[in-house]
Amino acid sequence: MADIDRTAANREAFDRLCAADPVLVDVRPAGEVLPGMTAGTVLTSGPPMAWGDYVGGQRDAVIGGALFEGLAASREEADAKLAGGEIQVDGCHDHGCVGSLAGIYTASMPVFVVQNRTHGNAGYCNMYEGTNPRRLNYGVYDEGVRERLLFVQDVVAPVIAEAVRTSGGIPLKPLMRRGLHMGDELHSRNTATSLLFTRELFPYLLRMDSADREAVERTVQALTEDHYFFLRLSMAAAKCTADAAAGVDGASVVTAMAFNCRNFAIRVSGLGNAWFAGPHATVRAKLFDGHTEDEIAWMGGESPIAETVGLGGFAQAAAFPLQRYQGGSAEAMVERNLEMYEITVGENPDYHIPYLGYRGTPTGIDIVRVVETRILPAMDIGIAGRDGGQIGAGVVRAPIECFEAALAAYRGRYGGT
Amino acid sequence: MADIDRTAANREAFDRLCAADPVLVDVRPAGEVLPGMTAGTVLTSGPPMAWGDYVGGQRDAVIGGALFEGLAASREEADAKLAGGEIQVDGCHDHGCVGSLAGIYTASMPVFVVQNRTHGNAGYCNMYEGTNPRRLNYGVYDEGVRERLLFVQDVVAPVIAEAVRTSGGIPLKPLMRRGLHMGDELHSRNTATSLLFTRELFPYLLRMDSADREAVERTVQALTEDHYFFLRLSMAAAKCTADAAAGVDGASVVTAMAFNCRNFAIRVSGLGNAWFAGPHATVRAKLFDGHTEDEIAWMGGESPIAETVGLGGFAQAAAFPLQRYQGGSAEAMVERNLEMYEITVGENPDYHIPYLGYRGTPTGIDIVRVVETRILPAMDIGIAGRDGGQIGAGVVRAPIECFEAALAAYRGRYGGT
Repeated sequence: MADIDRTAANREAFDRLCAADPVLVDVRPAGEVLPGMTAGTVLTSGPPMAWGDYVGGQRDAVIGGALFEGLAASREEADAKLAGGEIQVDGCHDHGCVGSLAGIYTASMPVFVVQNRTHGNAGYCNMYEGTNPRRLNYGVYDEGVRERLLFVQDVVAPVIAEAVRTSGGIPLKPLMRRGLHMGDELHSRNTATSLLFTRELFPYLLRMDSADREAVERTVQALTEDHYFFLRLSMAAAKCTADAAAGVDGASVVTAMAFNCRNFAIRVSGLGNAWFAGPHATVRAKLFDGHTEDEIAWMGGESPIAETVGLGGFAQAAAFPLQRYQGGSAEAMVERNLEMYEITVGENPDYHIPYLGYRGTPTGIDIVRVVETRILPAMDIGIAGRDGGQIGAGVVRAPIECFEAALAAYRGRYGGT
Repeated sequence: MADIDRTAANREAFDRLCAADPVLVDVRPAGEVLPGMTAGTVLTSGPPMAWGDYVGGQRDAVIGGALFEGLAASREEADAKLAGGEIQVDGCHDHGCVGSLAGIYTASMPVFVVQNRTHGNAGYCNMYEGTNPRRLNYGVYDEGVRERLLFVQDVVAPVIAEAVRTSGGIPLKPLMRRGLHMGDELHSRNTATSLLFTRELFPYLLRMDSADREAVERTVQALTEDHYFFLRLSMAAAKCTADAAAGVDGASVVTAMAFNCRNFAIRVSGLGNAWFAGPHATVRAKLFDGHTEDEIAWMGGESPIAETVGLGGFAQAAAFPLQRYQGGSAEAMVERNLEMYEITVGENPDYHIPYLGYRGTPTGIDIVRVVETRILPAMDIGIAGRDGGQIGAGVVRAPIECFEAALAAYRGRYGGT
């Protein structure tokens, strides 16, 4: 395939990434809305593997999900059922959703339903568990985690669901666009966008029956108490955006970046649903007090869907406050952000970085450029500890191997050297 | 007076600027709370002058205030009563408040009451008229302006007043501190802080009688529809902060910067309530479409109280989105912001600029340093047009003459060369 065709195909993929119009239309139980989801399924992050291959925190998280859902009464029973196939484990990405860290989905969990009104597809994401660093998606399951999951399910989700249904849908792109002008990069910092989203809900919250007032107040608290609530909306928006750019014949643009406990992997628009894997990403982390680098554990993560569509690490220069959270300097953030223009197809017409003179964010990672330049996609992520829970945050770089593997497959399919 | 004493006095003034703890405690009619305010007074910005000295938009604004308050039935009658002293015109700063642009206060207008809980004094500011560029404080008074003022008075103010009273007081410093991490500099950009303030009010707004629902919704709309609502709270907070630093014997720190239609002037901590005047500031403006530089008119302004306490132009590098609104580049904003460290006493311990590695904002303008370095305080302001209304925004530089005049007075009083 001639270069001119790849250019045109990549432009098509880029245009789709830019034209997507994600609108939050509902909040529903995963079992009701995720394609292919069943009562006995637990979804987790990264390329799916056989149950025996899941280790550490990701394995604990899947078992925790099974327990939360009542699919087993004990860890041992859950393990046996997972091994026997009575409980199925599968990858989020194949069910329209994306997982934050281990990314556990079970049928009863509420998920955001985000419609891409331009292309007609949908993306889904479950909800933030709250500020406590001990969370199911960080490989922890105990009574406290269960209580917080039930709070999300029984209090937060119904309130947001009612408000969203009454609203007729909350367009997310305008909020994300404004958030980038207010210190968010929509991966590790979503402070402003969480507030903007809450403000959009406010008229509908106000109209709710006064009997729900306490639930509404607790929901507003959950929405705004830290930097992360909107992330799941950003992820669902990014998922339906990236999916719209998948399947463009000849396009060498990345449509997913994700990892499980074993490896980091990418999908490419012109290469179907195949995952191209490499070793784990390299990380520059800032750890919470009392934690050390040797504790860092990989237990999955699909939030780099943000970077896939030109946000997160690709918009770091919009979010200098992240320095305190994930380390580094403003200069390093700018330099890293500028590098990303070298490996992307174009500049986003809607998402802008004020510090860079409102330049559009670098959008549409081209595997050819990554391999040629050896510039690796930078991602802002939360860091999990080997004993479970969040222990910090940092910037990771995708491994070159998955891009090399994808490029080999691309050349195998489309020709070229 | 030896330099060592000036250093100690300036440190005391600086410490007071930093220690102030502004808390919004009420919203009340100006006539009930402003010290020395009477039913027949109209307050306007800048050093007070005889009525005959007010010209152009500022004169129109004062007359408009008199009409709005019902002190006269026509412009001619208002003019005659102002000339005859039946209606008094006076300067905002002498009544505990600060004026945005022409800064018109009449007795019935609602004002924010901000208590400085550290030093026990209060600052006041009236409320933003809304997004329409035709506003009383920009020298316009007509039926539309009157309707919008009455909307503020009859709808917005009572809702906020009730919420604030129920809350027991809203501490403003934590909101301002966070706003600086979200793209605000708290003078020409208050987008995030307006949202943060609204979010603080939410629980109390939710509890209001459902009969008030429409008023609450309209209030939330007014609070969040543009970049300016919080400015008046920032100004009231800055006023009670700056006033706390006034009257320190030997301190050469600026405690007010303000202008009227004739000149720009400053007050200095160790020099009582005297104003030291110079010509108008110089401006680099970005004008709204359809307007030209020759239209720019000076009709007063006391919002540089923000810069007086280390915000606004002294925190520009926290607010890169301002580029689009007032022109310039991110590089120029950083350079200008860094200059301000050369003329200030210290770095604010609470207000930080993420881009500058969370460096504290330059706080406490020292007239000695201004004269020595010839670096002039930079201020972010709205620009008025000769026909009234806002026609743009920009960065102004205070004139050197007022600092030279103040320094001469300082040396006359305290000695030194």
